[in-house]
Amino acid sequence: MNNFLAACRSEPHDRVPVWFMRQAGRSLPEYRALRGDGSILDAIRDPKLAAEFTLQPVRRYGVDAAILYSDIVVPVAAIGFGVDVAPGTGPVVARPFASKADLDRLRPLDAARDTPYVIDAINAIVDELPDDVPLIGFAGAPFTVASYLVEGRPSRDYVKTKALMLGEPDLWRALMDKLADLAVASLRSQIEAGARAVQLFDSWAGALTIAQYVEHVLPASTKVFAAIADLGVPRIHFGVNTTNLLPFMAEAGAEVLGFDWRTPLTLRHTIRPVAVQGNLDPAVCFAPWPVVEREVRLVLSESEGAPGYIFNLGHGVMPETDPAVLARIVDLVHAEGRVA
Amino acid sequence: MNNFLAACRSEPHDRVPVWFMRQAGRSLPEYRALRGDGSILDAIRDPKLAAEFTLQPVRRYGVDAAILYSDIVVPVAAIGFGVDVAPGTGPVVARPFASKADLDRLRPLDAARDTPYVIDAINAIVDELPDDVPLIGFAGAPFTVASYLVEGRPSRDYVKTKALMLGEPDLWRALMDKLADLAVASLRSQIEAGARAVQLFDSWAGALTIAQYVEHVLPASTKVFAAIADLGVPRIHFGVNTTNLLPFMAEAGAEVLGFDWRTPLTLRHTIRPVAVQGNLDPAVCFAPWPVVEREVRLVLSESEGAPGYIFNLGHGVMPETDPAVLARIVDLVHAEGRVA
Repeated sequence: MNNFLAACRSEPHDRVPVWFMRQAGRSLPEYRALRGDGSILDAIRDPKLAAEFTLQPVRRYGVDAAILYSDIVVPVAAIGFGVDVAPGTGPVVARPFASKADLDRLRPLDAARDTPYVIDAINAIVDELPDDVPLIGFAGAPFTVASYLVEGRPSRDYVKTKALMLGEPDLWRALMDKLADLAVASLRSQIEAGARAVQLFDSWAGALTIAQYVEHVLPASTKVFAAIADLGVPRIHFGVNTTNLLPFMAEAGAEVLGFDWRTPLTLRHTIRPVAVQGNLDPAVCFAPWPVVEREVRLVLSESEGAPGYIFNLGHGVMPETDPAVLARIVDLVHAEGRVA
Repeated sequence: MNNFLAACRSEPHDRVPVWFMRQAGRSLPEYRALRGDGSILDAIRDPKLAAEFTLQPVRRYGVDAAILYSDIVVPVAAIGFGVDVAPGTGPVVARPFASKADLDRLRPLDAARDTPYVIDAINAIVDELPDDVPLIGFAGAPFTVASYLVEGRPSRDYVKTKALMLGEPDLWRALMDKLADLAVASLRSQIEAGARAVQLFDSWAGALTIAQYVEHVLPASTKVFAAIADLGVPRIHFGVNTTNLLPFMAEAGAEVLGFDWRTPLTLRHTIRPVAVQGNLDPAVCFAPWPVVEREVRLVLSESEGAPGYIFNLGHGVMPETDPAVLARIVDLVHAEGRVA
């Protein structure tokens, strides 16, 4: 039995699996050597490059899962909404979503036609990946993608997004529904091409109140998870600052909830039974090794050796992270992360 | 008995008091008309201007408390650490704090000599304020001020700050101790000049894990509150993203804890008895009035009519906020915020 997949399903396994959000990317010299400048979307559209970037951290770290080198705006960009990812800034939208007319700019995704490069990349990755290292596919959750489409760029306060959500709930619901369909189409195509697990990134949902989340966001995320349930792969659900939302996010139906470093892993006992993933503070990687070691052990101890736990950071690897530290973390988790 | 002061002390009072963090500032046309461009520090150094800016929202809204127009970097700037507040960016530091030698750049604050303009402003404010509207003084908490000094500018990840905290705990402790002393000197001078309550802003503490907070931050904030306890004014303690930290922040000793909008006010029952302040999502002010009205009522209902509750936003007023909405919120809270 594969440790990672078993942990996702809270089934018996003997060792704590480990991978890192954003393990592929800027922190790796072999990535920087090939990547060049320019939009990440161009790199993603090159299947050979995307496959190589996905495989690099698996070779270097011996992590228990690969995650597709991609971006949460790939589907909306592929259907021509006019999204790019500006280096150093993040997603930027030429004409932000503002009114009912903009719904027409969100046509359904035909993955084979619109994102063939994603499927080609996954085929190439699966050919090369060892059998015991599953590939994780992913998509942006409707709220987090909507926040970029409405704000037009990364935001701190999500004022326009919340104003739309609260002030025009019908339009908001229609937008969320379309974004849910896009995520479903993308995830289904990734799974059919060979992804053996998926993660839905609702990275910024933690900006919401519980009531806002439950009324205006949860239905769309639930729809995404329900619409891929028949494919039988484990589903991971993640966002930061979600302490108060986790019991509700759990209702969306994923097998695994990602915790950021603010939320003690022991909080899992207060929510619907799911596996948990997390939650080392990514900034800890910049401390001296004895501190990192102590903090990794603290996270492992909070996981209590129960099945259904996946070691990860509490958010993505920061670009300045020393890969040698991540390699030592993997070794430490593999050496000490036993499952009772 | 003054409603605001009684609520801070969880003593009997009959009406829910209301004020807004950052009620003085960019959202007011009468502020923009006087303010001009340039650093906020220049405006703060002009006591007449600072007094006027403090009084403007009291006149316009009829809020139950004034808050001093100031900035959390005023004390470190006043002792010559080399901090400015760049318009549109926030605090920037010419030579960030990086090593033991930088401790010498943090001499004690002599409030009468270093920040006479703060005392002059408070004198002018107190002269004009109605007796039943207390002035709230404030200071930045050691962690949040340290984050600016170490990062050199506003940060999302606090990597350098956490690396210093975890990697050089003795130096970190010395830094926090000096920043605690600065906050104490500033707060004491504000209270002696006429502030009748204070708020300690640990705005960014919510970036920390519980363990990081308890070991590396809580002692310094506790020191600040303890060192002003003899002056007998209510003390408010605030940060965002602090759901997991609130029970520990409560140990620092303040009479009032500020909640952001993520944390339901009902969570107060799980922590040491304190009064609570909050927590309308500032973004809600951009929704149509019926939505704002519903959300204000929701917040009031979560306060359960218990004494020891102060209505506020969950973070500062955003600059684009329509003052007319804030005025209606004050009226609504005054009309419906009864204390059982």
